[in-house]
Amino acid sequence: MTVTTLPSHLPSTMRAAVLRAPRELEIQERPVPRPGPGQVLVRIEAVGICGSDVHYYEHGRIADFVVRSPMVLGHEPGGTVVALGPGARRHQPGQLVSVEPGVPCGTCAQCRRGRYNLCPDVSFYATPPVDGALCEYVAVDENFAHPVPDRLTAEAAALLEPLSVGVWASRKGRVTPGSRVLVTGAGPIGLVAAQTARAFGATEVVVSDIAPHRLDLARQLGATATVDARDTGLAATGFAPDVLLECSGVPAVIDEAIRTVGRAGRAVLVGMGGDSVPLPLAHVQNFEIEVTGTFRYANTWPTAIALAASGEVRLDRLVSHRYGLEEAGQALTAAARDRTTIKPLVRPQPS
Amino acid sequence: MTVTTLPSHLPSTMRAAVLRAPRELEIQERPVPRPGPGQVLVRIEAVGICGSDVHYYEHGRIADFVVRSPMVLGHEPGGTVVALGPGARRHQPGQLVSVEPGVPCGTCAQCRRGRYNLCPDVSFYATPPVDGALCEYVAVDENFAHPVPDRLTAEAAALLEPLSVGVWASRKGRVTPGSRVLVTGAGPIGLVAAQTARAFGATEVVVSDIAPHRLDLARQLGATATVDARDTGLAATGFAPDVLLECSGVPAVIDEAIRTVGRAGRAVLVGMGGDSVPLPLAHVQNFEIEVTGTFRYANTWPTAIALAASGEVRLDRLVSHRYGLEEAGQALTAAARDRTTIKPLVRPQPS
Amino acid sequence: MTVTTLPSHLPSTMRAAVLRAPRELEIQERPVPRPGPGQVLVRIEAVGICGSDVHYYEHGRIADFVVRSPMVLGHEPGGTVVALGPGARRHQPGQLVSVEPGVPCGTCAQCRRGRYNLCPDVSFYATPPVDGALCEYVAVDENFAHPVPDRLTAEAAALLEPLSVGVWASRKGRVTPGSRVLVTGAGPIGLVAAQTARAFGATEVVVSDIAPHRLDLARQLGATATVDARDTGLAATGFAPDVLLECSGVPAVIDEAIRTVGRAGRAVLVGMGGDSVPLPLAHVQNFEIEVTGTFRYANTWPTAIALAASGEVRLDRLVSHRYGLEEAGQALTAAARDRTTIKPLVRPQPS
Amino acid sequence: MTVTTLPSHLPSTMRAAVLRAPRELEIQERPVPRPGPGQVLVRIEAVGICGSDVHYYEHGRIADFVVRSPMVLGHEPGGTVVALGPGARRHQPGQLVSVEPGVPCGTCAQCRRGRYNLCPDVSFYATPPVDGALCEYVAVDENFAHPVPDRLTAEAAALLEPLSVGVWASRKGRVTPGSRVLVTGAGPIGLVAAQTARAFGATEVVVSDIAPHRLDLARQLGATATVDARDTGLAATGFAPDVLLECSGVPAVIDEAIRTVGRAGRAVLVGMGGDSVPLPLAHVQNFEIEVTGTFRYANTWPTAIALAASGEVRLDRLVSHRYGLEEAGQALTAAARDRTTIKPLVRPQPS
Repeated sequence: MTVTTLPSHLPSTMRAAVLRAPRELEIQERPVPRPGPGQVLVRIEAVGICGSDVHYYEHGRIADFVVRSPMVLGHEPGGTVVALGPGARRHQPGQLVSVEPGVPCGTCAQCRRGRYNLCPDVSFYATPPVDGALCEYVAVDENFAHPVPDRLTAEAAALLEPLSVGVWASRKGRVTPGSRVLVTGAGPIGLVAAQTARAFGATEVVVSDIAPHRLDLARQLGATATVDARDTGLAATGFAPDVLLECSGVPAVIDEAIRTVGRAGRAVLVGMGGDSVPLPLAHVQNFEIEVTGTFRYANTWPTAIALAASGEVRLDRLVSHRYGLEEAGQALTAAARDRTTIKPLVRPQPS
Repeated sequence: MTVTTLPSHLPSTMRAAVLRAPRELEIQERPVPRPGPGQVLVRIEAVGICGSDVHYYEHGRIADFVVRSPMVLGHEPGGTVVALGPGARRHQPGQLVSVEPGVPCGTCAQCRRGRYNLCPDVSFYATPPVDGALCEYVAVDENFAHPVPDRLTAEAAALLEPLSVGVWASRKGRVTPGSRVLVTGAGPIGLVAAQTARAFGATEVVVSDIAPHRLDLARQLGATATVDARDTGLAATGFAPDVLLECSGVPAVIDEAIRTVGRAGRAVLVGMGGDSVPLPLAHVQNFEIEVTGTFRYANTWPTAIALAASGEVRLDRLVSHRYGLEEAGQALTAAARDRTTIKPLVRPQPS
Repeated sequence: MTVTTLPSHLPSTMRAAVLRAPRELEIQERPVPRPGPGQVLVRIEAVGICGSDVHYYEHGRIADFVVRSPMVLGHEPGGTVVALGPGARRHQPGQLVSVEPGVPCGTCAQCRRGRYNLCPDVSFYATPPVDGALCEYVAVDENFAHPVPDRLTAEAAALLEPLSVGVWASRKGRVTPGSRVLVTGAGPIGLVAAQTARAFGATEVVVSDIAPHRLDLARQLGATATVDARDTGLAATGFAPDVLLECSGVPAVIDEAIRTVGRAGRAVLVGMGGDSVPLPLAHVQNFEIEVTGTFRYANTWPTAIALAASGEVRLDRLVSHRYGLEEAGQALTAAARDRTTIKPLVRPQPS
Repeated sequence: MTVTTLPSHLPSTMRAAVLRAPRELEIQERPVPRPGPGQVLVRIEAVGICGSDVHYYEHGRIADFVVRSPMVLGHEPGGTVVALGPGARRHQPGQLVSVEPGVPCGTCAQCRRGRYNLCPDVSFYATPPVDGALCEYVAVDENFAHPVPDRLTAEAAALLEPLSVGVWASRKGRVTPGSRVLVTGAGPIGLVAAQTARAFGATEVVVSDIAPHRLDLARQLGATATVDARDTGLAATGFAPDVLLECSGVPAVIDEAIRTVGRAGRAVLVGMGGDSVPLPLAHVQNFEIEVTGTFRYANTWPTAIALAASGEVRLDRLVSHRYGLEEAGQALTAAARDRTTIKPLVRPQPS
């Protein structure tokens, strides 16, 4: 493969936070990657920590995906283009970009149909054995480094990844102006899902959770009502949504929430809840509810950028804590244990 | 309400098979109904017996629908127009028609969106407290008495109702030329679903059941392969369908069958299986499978008529037994108990 | 038909503005209609004047629709429920409502599919020979008298009808968050279309017209850019929209505008432009553009109400002039001749 | 780029029919291409001649696509895999394949959305400056060499390309069981479109043309009725299709045919008819007809293979003449001038 010579002002090595075993993160010095044909080199300014990072950190696996050799975590990077690989033509050095963390094969049956999130040969950051972005530089296909307008920060660029999850959920749920939406679970994904639903035109967005401070934040970010699930059953609210965006992953909540969905409604199961959950069949049949799950996203960045740039979605409000690269382990631990944490960010560049 | 005078050659009373209590059917003499404005009077030649009729007959209820006062069963009628109500203009007397058994309100939110099967105010035959069609005559809105071409028989006209269930399932599953379809359960609905899937262009239609004679019939009617579920698990077949048409209603089958569905596939739950069934969440998410249920049908008769008239769907092969009106109780008992029965028909007119 | 006795505080007669011949409007005293079964009686507070009213007023016909006998114009009424017909149960007297001016048959093939705007038997206000709403009271099916929240005025209730045209256009064009939209023509429909596109999430909405004051208003109402078509060709702007909402009806504009639409884009032809216009076939094929027209609307009121109530669409800003019922002729003349007029309203109640 | 060594039994050069200037075709000896990474080498057994080949042959250009240097024509190849490039894993040598003639970039906005036919960077056979398949061997991405079951011939494999045009048209028109379809123009594309519509379940397929022998063939291939357009106007037939598949490209026919389309129908413009044609705007609006054009196809081969393999579409009947590679000029001339020609095939291998 043809490679570029890196510009002389760039270092030849970088630091990376490598998961060696559960709860064992090591800062290693690694070569700065060289951008291949059609790739760009991105200096990473911010990386969001996601629940799946936490799960790999704590358990070394997610279902059948097992971390068998040391791996860099992190798949929500924002940063700046610093070098172009041969033939790359979309960006100028200095461009702020949000890196879409999965590059699909481009020619399989799923890719050809536009469902590239289902590509069986996708290379996705921080999914074993592919290294992620908790490091200083990544090389990536220029078409997966999405240019972000100047009014957005590198932190917002990083958080376009979770926003994409919300965009995908709202699309799957066909949220449209006038929709009535229930969001169960007010973690980072629930909070972007609620905001996205509003941006898609939903006129009622009810958010449920068991943590009052998360419900507070949901209201500040546009939820029209909230339900403290410790006190009130969803059925008791009388709210019959057109669309359920299920972001808790709790089987009992999934079951209860689907039962509230109105005729011809959609239930989008975003939260991961294990191998099997109960499905209220009679309700699904009598009301012809569509139930589906989401797996990552496809073609969401342009929309996510538009929503963030217009201010319709507030990403900055999700950031609860910031860490340096050496503190990545603390970030992962906090995300796992500290209930006041919404979304921790790692800023890999030395300050 | 303005009413017509019935033509003098028509009788003023008719026989009807009335369910008085579970397993207690009585032949009663009732007035022949007079067609109201926009209605036609249909002399019923054939009525299919459906699983829901059997369930009411055996238990006096289905879930929350309880037979509280004597009710005529039957919602699959075919017959001949014999008189027109005021303003009716679509049919001539003598026209063979298939009667769509549910007339919705026409103006509610569901009706206005074309989802009239979800109309909360629908009047549906043989659903308490609305009388059904196990009798000699019914009056019905002319737009719900669908004209059937001469090449079809009154029995086929009756069976356009279950065929509509299959058409609706194939539509919900978006079966299209080249689709690969799994049909679980080879009762009357599974058999029409399999045929409909073929008529929608599916190139592979695999049918599973535990009754060899039903699997034989499935193959004769166009299934490209069958699975005897007593011997072989669905996963073991290696068949990953684009579309599952679940017609068994058995929770374990629902779970197992959904697990075989391929990426971006659809699982249409047609068979009634109670309040709750297990849903393989991780599979639904990882493969972004759409799971939905069917409730009756909407706008299916034109398609069902086309499929039956062209011979692409064979309805006659489903008829396993024929009964007179006085034998309606036997028909219901046979449908409940006799496993050789596929679809019993009642012919209400005196022979 | 069963009728109610009108409440004693209501008058038995009312004034109506009747078109007797082109440009010949007469105020007549007519009986207040009595609401039939399922209908409500609405006291009309405001009626928008539409281009089709103007066309009937000026020419006595639109294409094949000819005013052959005296007819009341007006199809954009807002008002208050003052009496209920037998069986009407949706509203309480005093409820502010927006009247959807076309009541379809409810059972034909189009209605049953949810496309009730295409019902060949629809009864639509101010389309010969059906009387419209330039009068003091109308009786209407309760399901077509849409309740409007208190924060909206009767004038806004009236203007939900043109807003529905915009909602329908945005739906047909599948405007979605991130869409880039071109609106050609900044009359009342163009102005609601532009606002609706924004409310549907479009991030760029470019509006073209030849009247600077209309372009000014477009910018105030959310257009992200405007084009003065006297100076600049659409192609010269370099803007390649995802969606064209064509509201001018000018054949040359239609042709020019479609040529700017990007790959897989949609061109929605809202403006009436006569029997035939040029279609840029090669562009439509090479870019696989979908071209369609709109005819009224279906199922738009709930969305229109939501958009107006949330403030995302500003209807009040469209009202340029107000008239009493006796001045209806002036209103129609101004709409036809006075280019400073955007949307005239008639307030039929005596002040 | 890594390349394979060709198997020793393969020749190092081959013959190719090269267009040097309008109507000037030369047989040249060229190197057999070497399959690159992920490619396969295909020995071509049959190539269909298409109208666009003829147009390049006669005029040296199609609209803005100009043949500026010598180019091989032909984009409908069927043949046999004879060698694998590095990493190719889908096929075994000896596999009969149909070659999809356009390989898109795989990562642009259009490709990522599954609309790869609209990829601006597609490399498409016999579109300047890309060489086509009127030669003995081509190297192609393995994912664009579609395996064809043994029951089909190499000639059928070649004709899966025009069949794909028909599949794409029927998909764009949403032909479904029960659809009523009008096909205007009974050339090779009209004949596959008519057959495809039948295979998609259309119950009425009316075909119009001015050549009686083409109408005869249309009836033999499944048209339910034909119209000799020299005698009968389309409107006079009274047939109001749900879907128009326009394959003539004649502006007057396009206009006339769209005017017959029924409410909410679709008009798919397949035939190339120049820069501009008349559009019956009022009809398109009043009936809300969707008008669109087709540009090649995307994701059609699996369906096309299924339809051909099941016998629902008869491709062999389209082949009217066969030519050797040296006779390619005659094939092109016959396709242009001889009205008895339906589809000529070139068989490039020496006999």
